Amino acid sequence: MSFAGEQHPGVNPSAPQTQGFRLNHTMLRAKDPECSLAFYSKVFGMQVLRRLDFEEMQFSLYFLANLDADDRVPEETKARTAWTFSQKGLLELTHNWGTEEQEEFAYHDGNAEPQGFGHICFSVPDLNAAQAWFDEHAVTFVKRADQGKMKDVIFVKDPDGYWIEVIQADLMAAMGD
Amino acid sequence: MSFAGEQHPGVNPSAPQTQGFRLNHTMLRAKDPECSLAFYSKVFGMQVLRRLDFEEMQFSLYFLANLDADDRVPEETKARTAWTFSQKGLLELTHNWGTEEQEEFAYHDGNAEPQGFGHICFSVPDLNAAQAWFDEHAVTFVKRADQGKMKDVIFVKDPDGYWIEVIQADLMAAMGD
Repeated sequence: MSFAGEQHPGVNPSAPQTQGFRLNHTMLRAKDPECSLAFYSKVFGMQVLRRLDFEEMQFSLYFLANLDADDRVPEETKARTAWTFSQKGLLELTHNWGTEEQEEFAYHDGNAEPQGFGHICFSVPDLNAAQAWFDEHAVTFVKRADQGKMKDVIFVKDPDGYWIEVIQADLMAAMGD
Repeated sequence: MSFAGEQHPGVNPSAPQTQGFRLNHTMLRAKDPECSLAFYSKVFGMQVLRRLDFEEMQFSLYFLANLDADDRVPEETKARTAWTFSQKGLLELTHNWGTEEQEEFAYHDGNAEPQGFGHICFSVPDLNAAQAWFDEHAVTFVKRADQGKMKDVIFVKDPDGYWIEVIQADLMAAMGD
Protein backbone atom coordinates (compact mmCIF):
# COMPACT_ATOMS: atom_id res chain seq x y z
CA MET A 1 0.00 0.00 0.00
CA SER A 2 1.19 3.52 -0.66
CA PHE A 3 -0.63 6.78 -0.24
CA ALA A 4 -0.80 9.75 -2.54
CA GLY A 5 1.75 12.46 -1.94
CA GLU A 6 3.83 10.63 0.66
CA GLN A 7 7.32 9.27 0.16
CA HIS A 8 8.28 6.35 2.36
CA PRO A 9 11.95 5.63 1.72
CA GLY A 10 12.97 2.01 1.99
CA VAL A 11 9.49 0.57 2.44
CA ASN A 12 8.78 -2.92 1.17
CA PRO A 13 5.41 -4.57 0.69
CA SER A 14 4.37 -6.82 3.60
CA ALA A 15 5.46 -10.41 3.03
CA PRO A 16 3.05 -13.28 3.76
CA GLN A 17 5.57 -14.54 6.35
CA THR A 18 4.64 -11.55 8.54
CA GLN A 19 0.90 -12.17 8.48
CA GLY A 20 -0.55 -12.06 11.97
CA PHE A 21 2.37 -10.10 13.42
CA ARG A 22 1.10 -7.45 15.84
CA LEU A 23 2.62 -4.95 18.22
CA ASN A 24 1.61 -6.51 21.53
CA HIS A 25 3.25 -4.28 24.09
CA THR A 26 5.83 -1.71 25.07
CA MET A 27 7.93 -2.33 28.16
CA LEU A 28 8.94 0.42 30.57
CA ARG A 29 10.76 -0.12 33.84
CA ALA A 30 8.90 1.30 36.84
CA LYS A 31 10.52 2.19 40.17
CA ASP A 32 7.42 1.71 42.34
CA PRO A 33 4.68 -0.57 40.98
CA GLU A 34 2.12 0.56 43.54
CA CYS A 35 2.53 4.13 42.38
CA SER A 36 2.58 3.29 38.66
CA LEU A 37 -0.33 0.86 38.80
CA ALA A 38 -2.40 3.44 40.70
CA PHE A 39 -1.55 6.01 38.03
CA TYR A 40 -2.24 3.91 34.93
CA SER A 41 -5.41 2.38 36.37
CA LYS A 42 -6.86 5.57 37.80
CA VAL A 43 -5.80 8.19 35.27
CA PHE A 44 -5.66 6.10 32.08
CA GLY A 45 -8.23 3.41 32.90
CA MET A 46 -5.88 0.48 32.33
CA GLN A 47 -6.39 -2.89 33.96
CA VAL A 48 -3.77 -5.44 34.93
CA LEU A 49 -4.38 -8.50 32.79
CA ARG A 50 -1.46 -10.49 34.12
CA ARG A 51 1.23 -10.27 36.75
CA LEU A 52 4.27 -12.49 36.50
CA ASP A 53 6.78 -12.81 39.37
CA PHE A 54 10.30 -14.08 38.88
CA GLU A 55 11.60 -14.93 42.33
CA GLU A 56 15.00 -16.15 41.14
CA MET A 57 15.69 -13.00 39.14
CA GLN A 58 13.92 -10.70 41.62
CA PHE A 59 11.53 -8.90 39.32
CA SER A 60 7.84 -8.72 38.49
CA LEU A 61 6.06 -7.92 35.25
CA TYR A 62 2.65 -6.28 34.99
CA PHE A 63 0.74 -6.33 31.69
CA LEU A 64 -1.87 -3.58 31.41
CA ALA A 65 -4.59 -2.93 28.85
CA ASN A 66 -7.47 -0.60 28.14
CA LEU A 67 -10.35 -3.00 27.68
CA ASP A 68 -13.17 -2.34 25.24
CA ALA A 69 -16.75 -3.07 26.25
CA ASP A 70 -16.83 -6.15 24.01
CA ASP A 71 -13.51 -7.60 25.19
CA ARG A 72 -14.05 -10.94 26.88
CA VAL A 73 -11.01 -11.61 29.02
CA PRO A 74 -10.82 -15.27 30.05
CA GLU A 75 -10.85 -15.74 33.84
CA GLU A 76 -8.76 -18.93 33.82
CA THR A 77 -5.08 -18.06 34.13
CA LYS A 78 -3.55 -19.86 31.15
CA ALA A 79 -6.32 -18.78 28.79
CA ARG A 80 -6.04 -15.20 30.09
CA THR A 81 -2.29 -15.25 29.56
CA ALA A 82 -2.63 -16.43 25.97
CA TRP A 83 -5.34 -13.80 25.39
CA THR A 84 -3.12 -11.10 26.85
CA PHE A 85 -0.24 -11.93 24.52
CA SER A 86 -2.46 -11.91 21.43
CA GLN A 87 -3.69 -8.32 21.91
CA LYS A 88 -2.43 -5.02 20.52
CA GLY A 89 -1.43 -1.93 22.45
CA LEU A 90 -0.59 -3.21 25.93
CA LEU A 91 1.80 -1.66 28.41
CA GLU A 92 4.27 -3.85 30.31
CA LEU A 93 5.76 -2.45 33.50
CA THR A 94 8.86 -4.15 34.86
CA HIS A 95 9.56 -3.86 38.57
CA ASN A 96 13.02 -4.79 39.76
CA TRP A 97 12.41 -5.56 43.41
CA GLY A 98 13.64 -3.02 45.89
CA THR A 99 14.01 0.02 43.63
CA GLU A 100 11.01 1.63 45.34
CA GLU A 101 12.97 1.73 48.60
CA GLN A 102 15.99 3.57 47.15
CA GLU A 103 15.29 7.26 47.52
CA GLU A 104 17.70 8.41 44.83
CA PHE A 105 16.79 5.73 42.33
CA ALA A 106 15.33 6.99 39.06
CA TYR A 107 14.78 5.65 35.56
CA HIS A 108 15.81 7.53 32.42
CA ASP A 109 12.96 8.96 30.33
CA GLY A 110 14.73 8.83 26.95
CA ASN A 111 14.08 12.51 26.21
CA ALA A 112 16.91 13.91 28.28
CA GLU A 113 20.34 12.87 26.95
CA PRO A 114 21.11 10.19 25.97
CA GLN A 115 17.98 10.22 23.80
CA GLY A 116 16.19 7.24 22.35
CA PHE A 117 12.67 6.23 23.37
CA GLY A 118 10.34 9.22 23.22
CA HIS A 119 6.88 8.49 24.59
CA ILE A 120 3.80 6.34 24.60
CA CYS A 121 0.59 7.87 23.29
CA PHE A 122 -3.03 7.41 24.26
CA SER A 123 -5.85 8.25 21.89
CA VAL A 124 -8.89 9.61 23.79
CA PRO A 125 -12.43 10.44 22.68
CA ASP A 126 -12.40 14.01 24.10
CA LEU A 127 -9.13 15.88 24.57
CA ASN A 128 -10.58 18.72 26.66
CA ALA A 129 -12.34 16.31 28.99
CA ALA A 130 -9.10 14.34 29.31
CA GLN A 131 -7.15 17.49 30.17
CA ALA A 132 -9.67 18.36 32.91
CA TRP A 133 -9.45 14.76 34.16
CA PHE A 134 -5.64 15.03 34.38
CA ASP A 135 -5.98 18.30 36.33
CA GLU A 136 -8.41 16.62 38.69
CA HIS A 137 -5.71 14.03 39.45
CA ALA A 138 -2.87 16.56 39.69
CA VAL A 139 -1.03 14.95 36.77
CA THR A 140 2.23 16.65 35.77
CA PHE A 141 1.98 18.30 32.36
CA VAL A 142 4.87 18.64 29.91
CA LYS A 143 2.54 20.70 27.74
CA ARG A 144 -1.17 21.45 27.60
CA ALA A 145 -3.30 21.31 24.45
CA ASP A 146 -2.99 25.05 23.81
CA GLN A 147 0.76 25.30 24.44
CA GLY A 148 3.69 24.96 22.05
CA LYS A 149 3.79 24.49 18.30
CA MET A 150 1.66 21.38 18.24
CA LYS A 151 -1.85 22.41 19.19
CA ASP A 152 -4.38 19.83 20.33
CA VAL A 153 -1.61 17.58 21.61
CA ILE A 154 -1.09 17.04 25.34
CA PHE A 155 2.01 15.64 26.98
CA VAL A 156 2.00 14.50 30.61
CA LYS A 157 4.46 12.54 32.73
CA ASP A 158 3.94 9.20 34.39
CA PRO A 159 5.31 8.54 37.92
CA ASP A 160 8.75 7.63 36.54
CA GLY A 161 8.87 10.73 34.36
CA TYR A 162 8.18 8.91 31.06
CA TRP A 163 6.33 11.15 28.64
CA ILE A 164 2.78 10.25 27.66
CA GLU A 165 1.24 11.95 24.63
CA VAL A 166 -2.54 12.32 24.58
CA ILE A 167 -4.45 13.01 21.37
CA GLN A 168 -7.97 13.00 19.94
CA ALA A 169 -7.99 11.18 16.59
CA ASP A 170 -10.25 13.52 14.61
CA LEU A 171 -8.38 16.62 15.79
CA MET A 172 -5.17 15.08 14.39
CA ALA A 173 -6.63 15.03 10.88
CA ALA A 174 -5.55 18.65 10.42
CA MET A 175 -1.90 17.70 11.07
CA GLY A 176 0.46 18.07 8.16
CA ASP A 177 -1.79 20.48 6.24
CA MET B 1 -11.63 -6.69 37.47
CA SER B 2 -9.26 -8.75 39.54
CA PHE B 3 -7.95 -12.21 38.93
CA ALA B 4 -7.58 -15.10 41.33
CA GLY B 5 -4.20 -15.39 42.99
CA GLU B 6 -2.71 -12.13 41.73
CA GLN B 7 -2.00 -9.07 43.85
CA HIS B 8 -2.02 -5.75 42.00
CA PRO B 9 -0.89 -3.11 44.47
CA GLY B 10 -2.44 0.29 44.02
CA VAL B 11 -4.89 -0.66 41.28
CA ASN B 12 -8.15 1.23 41.01
CA PRO B 13 -11.24 0.26 39.03
CA SER B 14 -11.47 2.00 35.65
CA ALA B 15 -13.44 5.24 35.86
CA PRO B 16 -16.05 6.08 33.20
CA GLN B 17 -13.99 9.19 32.37
CA THR B 18 -11.35 6.90 30.84
CA GLN B 19 -13.75 5.04 28.55
CA GLY B 20 -12.40 4.87 25.03
CA PHE B 21 -8.80 5.54 26.05
CA ARG B 22 -6.42 3.36 24.06
CA LEU B 23 -2.67 2.97 23.70
CA ASN B 24 -2.25 4.29 20.17
CA HIS B 25 1.50 4.23 19.67
CA THR B 26 5.02 4.13 21.02
CA MET B 27 7.54 6.64 19.71
CA LEU B 28 11.18 5.75 19.08
CA ARG B 29 13.72 8.06 17.49
CA ALA B 30 15.37 6.56 14.41
CA LYS B 31 18.72 7.67 12.99
CA ASP B 32 18.06 6.63 9.38
CA PRO B 33 14.42 6.34 8.28
CA GLU B 34 15.26 4.51 5.06
CA CYS B 35 17.00 1.82 7.04
CA SER B 36 14.33 1.60 9.77
CA LEU B 37 11.38 1.65 7.37
CA ALA B 38 13.01 -1.10 5.30
CA PHE B 39 13.48 -3.13 8.48
CA TYR B 40 10.00 -2.73 9.99
CA SER B 41 8.23 -3.19 6.65
CA LYS B 42 10.27 -6.15 5.44
CA VAL B 43 10.97 -8.05 8.65
CA PHE B 44 7.88 -7.15 10.72
CA GLY B 45 5.34 -6.52 7.95
CA MET B 46 4.44 -3.00 9.07
CA GLN B 47 3.06 -0.41 6.70
CA VAL B 48 3.43 3.34 6.89
CA LEU B 49 -0.03 4.77 7.48
CA ARG B 50 1.05 8.38 7.70
CA ARG B 51 4.15 10.49 7.27
CA LEU B 52 4.23 14.00 8.71
CA ASP B 53 7.02 16.44 7.88
CA PHE B 54 7.80 19.45 10.04
CA GLU B 55 10.00 21.71 7.91
CA GLU B 56 10.34 24.42 10.54
CA MET B 57 11.47 22.00 13.24
CA GLN B 58 13.41 19.78 10.82
CA PHE B 59 11.92 16.42 11.62
CA SER B 60 9.60 13.82 10.14
CA LEU B 61 7.27 11.34 11.81
CA TYR B 62 6.33 7.96 10.40
CA PHE B 63 3.37 6.03 11.83
CA LEU B 64 3.52 2.29 11.17
CA ALA B 65 1.00 -0.48 11.72
CA ASN B 66 0.49 -4.17 11.13
CA LEU B 67 -2.78 -4.26 9.23
CA ASP B 68 -5.27 -7.07 9.65
CA ALA B 69 -7.02 -8.50 6.59
CA ASP B 70 -10.26 -6.78 7.59
CA ASP B 71 -8.73 -3.36 8.25
CA ARG B 72 -10.11 -0.78 5.84
CA VAL B 73 -7.64 2.11 5.79
CA PRO B 74 -9.21 5.21 4.23
CA GLU B 75 -7.28 6.45 1.18
CA GLU B 76 -8.17 10.12 1.65
CA THR B 77 -5.52 11.81 3.77
CA LYS B 78 -7.57 13.41 6.55
CA ALA B 79 -9.75 10.33 7.00
CA ARG B 80 -6.64 8.13 7.00
CA THR B 81 -4.99 10.35 9.61
CA ALA B 82 -8.02 10.17 11.91
CA TRP B 83 -8.15 6.40 11.39
CA THR B 84 -4.45 6.08 12.20
CA PHE B 85 -4.82 7.92 15.49
CA SER B 86 -7.77 5.81 16.60
CA GLN B 87 -5.92 2.49 16.36
CA LYS B 88 -4.03 0.44 18.95
CA GLY B 89 -0.48 -0.78 18.77
CA LEU B 90 1.21 1.51 16.25
CA LEU B 91 4.88 2.41 16.09
CA GLU B 92 5.94 6.01 15.55
CA LEU B 93 9.45 6.64 14.27
CA THR B 94 10.83 10.15 14.63
CA HIS B 95 13.56 11.24 12.24
CA ASN B 96 15.50 14.35 13.13
CA TRP B 97 16.82 15.42 9.75
CA GLY B 98 20.51 14.86 9.15
CA THR B 99 21.26 12.27 11.83
CA GLU B 100 21.67 9.63 9.12
CA GLU B 101 24.68 11.53 7.78
CA GLN B 102 26.54 11.66 11.10
CA GLU B 103 28.68 8.56 11.28
CA GLU B 104 29.08 8.54 15.07
CA PHE B 105 25.46 9.41 15.83
CA ALA B 106 23.56 6.78 17.80
CA TYR B 107 20.39 6.61 19.87
CA HIS B 108 20.25 5.09 23.35
CA ASP B 109 18.43 1.77 23.66
CA GLY B 110 17.29 2.16 27.28
CA ASN B 111 18.80 -1.18 28.34
CA ALA B 112 22.37 0.01 28.74
CA GLU B 113 22.75 2.59 31.53
CA PRO B 114 20.94 4.83 32.10
CA GLN B 115 18.03 2.36 31.96
CA GLY B 116 14.38 3.16 31.33
CA PHE B 117 12.52 1.98 28.23
CA GLY B 118 13.04 -1.74 27.69
CA HIS B 119 11.58 -2.99 24.43
CA ILE B 120 8.65 -3.27 22.11
CA CYS B 121 7.12 -6.72 21.61
CA PHE B 122 5.51 -8.37 18.63
CA SER B 123 3.15 -11.30 19.01
CA VAL B 124 3.49 -13.73 16.10
CA PRO B 125 1.51 -16.81 15.08
CA ASP B 126 4.54 -19.13 14.85
CA LEU B 127 7.70 -18.41 16.83
CA ASN B 128 9.91 -20.93 15.03
CA ALA B 129 8.86 -19.66 11.63
CA ALA B 130 9.54 -16.10 12.81
CA GLN B 131 13.01 -17.07 14.00
CA ALA B 132 13.81 -18.62 10.63
CA TRP B 133 12.45 -15.49 8.93
CA PHE B 134 14.75 -13.30 11.04
CA ASP B 135 17.73 -15.51 10.11
CA GLU B 136 16.79 -15.19 6.47
CA HIS B 137 17.06 -11.41 6.83
CA ALA B 138 20.26 -11.49 8.91
CA VAL B 139 18.53 -9.83 11.86
CA THR B 140 20.71 -9.35 14.95
CA PHE B 141 19.61 -11.54 17.85
CA VAL B 142 19.89 -10.60 21.51
CA LYS B 143 18.67 -14.10 22.31
CA ARG B 144 17.10 -16.96 20.45
CA ALA B 145 14.05 -18.92 21.60
CA ASP B 146 16.14 -21.69 23.16
CA GLN B 147 18.66 -19.42 24.93
CA GLY B 148 18.59 -17.92 28.41
CA LYS B 149 16.16 -18.41 31.29
CA MET B 150 13.07 -17.40 29.36
CA LYS B 151 12.43 -20.12 26.81
CA ASP B 152 10.16 -19.46 23.84
CA VAL B 153 10.98 -15.75 23.92
CA ILE B 154 13.10 -14.15 21.21
CA PHE B 155 14.83 -10.79 21.41
CA VAL B 156 16.25 -9.09 18.32
CA LYS B 157 17.57 -5.60 17.65
CA ASP B 158 16.22 -3.00 15.27
CA PRO B 159 18.60 -0.83 13.17
CA ASP B 160 19.04 1.64 16.06
CA GLY B 161 19.73 -1.13 18.53
CA TYR B 162 16.32 -0.98 20.27
CA TRP B 163 15.31 -4.36 21.59
CA ILE B 164 12.31 -6.13 20.07
CA GLU B 165 10.78 -9.06 21.91
CA VAL B 166 8.98 -11.67 19.84
CA ILE B 167 6.53 -14.13 21.37
CA GLN B 168 3.83 -16.62 20.44
CA ALA B 169 0.74 -16.07 22.57
CA ASP B 170 -0.19 -19.69 23.35
CA LEU B 171 3.42 -20.57 24.26
CA MET B 172 3.33 -17.79 26.86
CA ALA B 173 0.48 -19.47 28.71
CA ALA B 174 3.01 -21.64 30.57
CA MET B 175 4.73 -18.52 31.98
CA GLY B 176 4.51 -18.05 35.70
CA ASP B 177 3.66 -21.67 36.45
